[in-house]
Amino acid sequence: MSSKPSIPKGTRDFSAVELAKRNYVTQIIKHNFEHFGYQPLETPTFENYETLMGKYGDEGDRLIFKILNSGNFFFDKNTLNLPTQIEELLQKDMDKLSKEEIISLNQFTQKISEKALRYDLTVPFARYVVMNQNQLEFPFKRYQIQPVWRADRPQKGRFREFYQCDADVVGSQSLWQEVELVQLYDVVFSQLNLKNTEIKINNRKILSGLAEVIGAANQLIDFTVALDKLDKIGEDGVKKEMLEKGISEKALEKLQPLFQFTGNNIEKIAQLETMLSQSEIGKKGIEELRFICENIEKIGLLTSQLVIDVTLARGLNYYTGAIFEVVASGVAMGSIGGGGRYDDLTGIFGLKNMSGVGISFGLDRIVLVLEELQLFPENVNQFTEVLFFNNDKDLVLIQKYIQELRKHHIKTEFYPDAVKTDKQFKYAEKKQITWVVKNIENEILDAKNIKSGTIFIGKLSEFLEKINE
Amino acid sequence: MSSKPSIPKGTRDFSAVELAKRNYVTQIIKHNFEHFGYQPLETPTFENYETLMGKYGDEGDRLIFKILNSGNFFFDKNTLNLPTQIEELLQKDMDKLSKEEIISLNQFTQKISEKALRYDLTVPFARYVVMNQNQLEFPFKRYQIQPVWRADRPQKGRFREFYQCDADVVGSQSLWQEVELVQLYDVVFSQLNLKNTEIKINNRKILSGLAEVIGAANQLIDFTVALDKLDKIGEDGVKKEMLEKGISEKALEKLQPLFQFTGNNIEKIAQLETMLSQSEIGKKGIEELRFICENIEKIGLLTSQLVIDVTLARGLNYYTGAIFEVVASGVAMGSIGGGGRYDDLTGIFGLKNMSGVGISFGLDRIVLVLEELQLFPENVNQFTEVLFFNNDKDLVLIQKYIQELRKHHIKTEFYPDAVKTDKQFKYAEKKQITWVVKNIENEILDAKNIKSGTIFIGKLSEFLEKINE
Repeated sequence: MSSKPSIPKGTRDFSAVELAKRNYVTQIIKHNFEHFGYQPLETPTFENYETLMGKYGDEGDRLIFKILNSGNFFFDKNTLNLPTQIEELLQKDMDKLSKEEIISLNQFTQKISEKALRYDLTVPFARYVVMNQNQLEFPFKRYQIQPVWRADRPQKGRFREFYQCDADVVGSQSLWQEVELVQLYDVVFSQLNLKNTEIKINNRKILSGLAEVIGAANQLIDFTVALDKLDKIGEDGVKKEMLEKGISEKALEKLQPLFQFTGNNIEKIAQLETMLSQSEIGKKGIEELRFICENIEKIGLLTSQLVIDVTLARGLNYYTGAIFEVVASGVAMGSIGGGGRYDDLTGIFGLKNMSGVGISFGLDRIVLVLEELQLFPENVNQFTEVLFFNNDKDLVLIQKYIQELRKHHIKTEFYPDAVKTDKQFKYAEKKQITWVVKNIENEILDAKNIKSGTIFIGKLSEFLEKINE
Repeated sequence: MSSKPSIPKGTRDFSAVELAKRNYVTQIIKHNFEHFGYQPLETPTFENYETLMGKYGDEGDRLIFKILNSGNFFFDKNTLNLPTQIEELLQKDMDKLSKEEIISLNQFTQKISEKALRYDLTVPFARYVVMNQNQLEFPFKRYQIQPVWRADRPQKGRFREFYQCDADVVGSQSLWQEVELVQLYDVVFSQLNLKNTEIKINNRKILSGLAEVIGAANQLIDFTVALDKLDKIGEDGVKKEMLEKGISEKALEKLQPLFQFTGNNIEKIAQLETMLSQSEIGKKGIEELRFICENIEKIGLLTSQLVIDVTLARGLNYYTGAIFEVVASGVAMGSIGGGGRYDDLTGIFGLKNMSGVGISFGLDRIVLVLEELQLFPENVNQFTEVLFFNNDKDLVLIQKYIQELRKHHIKTEFYPDAVKTDKQFKYAEKKQITWVVKNIENEILDAKNIKSGTIFIGKLSEFLEKINE
């Protein structure tokens, strides 16, 4: 009971300094979400088991945290009817279980667990839209910044609890929304002083078209998974993997122009037109890509670049049109954002023909990038600005002065105990407080700026002016 | 799979309108927490099982949501060794289980569940302080605004997921902290325009003293639980309950002055002094109460009243000094805040002599009170301010105009599809958007304020002035 406590692996406590940095980023994201017409939504931490299960593939199902039925479920015998067989199954090695046995175990899990922790923000959003379809006005634009949980093996930079920051709009197929989402990425990263951010764009229909023209239409996933690795394993690696997956030498020859892709977006589109002239779906993809790129060209971006990357695949089984991925310049960090168009988000809950498009910001990585590039404002973690020392005299007067400073929006603290000045100084330093008021004599404050060393002696009204300089 | 989805009972989705109201309240609370020197902390959603269990009493243990071991725990046979006996126990009625059998079931729960959802913010805070005691500077002031979960039976106004807003300071016994917390309550409720809020105050030592002088010291809990019900069941009800609990007629006679308690704080303290003149602990309680009340009297409150209420007991097994409870004026809502002094918060994790004091704001109830008294600002849920209609012409120009407005911090949206004007109008109305720009001709905007009916025709720069009026 009294052994030193710990926190679950893969989770974090966020101290004030860390929260200050995270809030700095999320405030800029929120500000722009709202300036683009997205409204906030928050969904519960846990969803019904059946809302989540089966939505993320087998691996996803395993990574969903399940909650035991309310309270101590064993106290309610009616909720559980444990088959004898379960115990036998548990003795076996997982790999040796038959499919029927696995199903039987899953059914048991379902009996003792009706709820599970949110795995992402997209499925709860879809669930919300379907539940409220008669009240909502479409297109429905929402943003959501909340934690999600995955029972992944924790490792450096991968946590079991982490935040997602999503903006999605459902109910319109207009490509102007993609155009706006590119601008949204641009303005957020510009305001974060992350210049030259690369917003990569591709289109699922182009990937389908490419697979089609090389005769690998029925190997679309294998094809794109391999292609997506181009920057990691190079041209030879990609080709080797495709060959291993049964894509023919002849098909690879037709693919060759892809590996020589160069130039600006207009030039890339021209090359794609040549390659995909025989694919209807491919041509549709080019048309969408061109619309977005041309309009962004005309409207202009602040500091980011929109760059066509035909190898970008990212969650392919999900996206149906545009695919986005964002990488920061000058730092090796992987993607700091991603998103795309999905034509049938709410279909999983029975609401058809509800096209959506959305983007996501990778909060943890953005914080790491800003730290590495030293782009946080100097005063990002400025909390208390003034500390009044406690010399065990005039304490009511001090309280009145403090009240006055707070009224003027100065974050002000009072040291509660009349201990040695050294200790009170140390407290101010450790908390990064700027000013300490050491003494008050005849309404004259004796104060010091412990960051600059400046001494102030004067009345409260003058002190207020000094602080606000 | 495609049946209409739902959310778990006792949980809520928060739409934009609801979040706007909640954020209005939490922003004011956060602002003042920080202006009083409290810094933010966030702890993980789940804690280790042993961190939480045994901290909230038997009933609390049952109400803690437990999480199944990672992923599908059944797939890892080593994590579970199910005793045959368990199945037999599950067939029995809960009430008929022996203590040994309950322990055996609990041990089983512990085997399949190592984590549990946060039940309050206080125990995670204590855990954090103990884990980081060598890094923290004391007194350590933190605030925390996060959801907690309890497997309570959901009912009107009682949820399984709800937010707590706590500010606590540990590491100092100074009563100035109580004085500041009263001011903190006062300034928050004043800024929320909740005038005449009653901040009730009592002291655990006074309750102990009262029990002592009437000869019921070993029935302190029964005594205070009954006393706490005075405003619900009246004097006769309280006496009846005390008699039933074995508190003697003679003891009740000595208690009689308590039921005639009147006057202001100073007069109440005088009456307490008479009653508790023979109790050392009672006199200590009066001394603490007097310090807080007298200093608040000298410093002054904005719009609240500090009122001594000797029947206030609130979580008695927890608090050791001051006890606070806040009720709003002019509305029947129960307490909208509470807190107190606890001398041994971190003792549960082995760190002794760490006195703390804290207060909590009841977010859900405060929102309900502000709604009932119509105290939310009129524009609290103003999101998008301007909507540009889509007539399928000049769309790039419109995008540039939108960019310009957003640069000037005007929340601006573009209707993505060139549908009938009626539909676009309806969208603006439903989203409570103030201005619609219906058309642009030769750089002249044709706009309408759909709330006031005002028509605007002019250039973008003039439109900006108009909006900012």
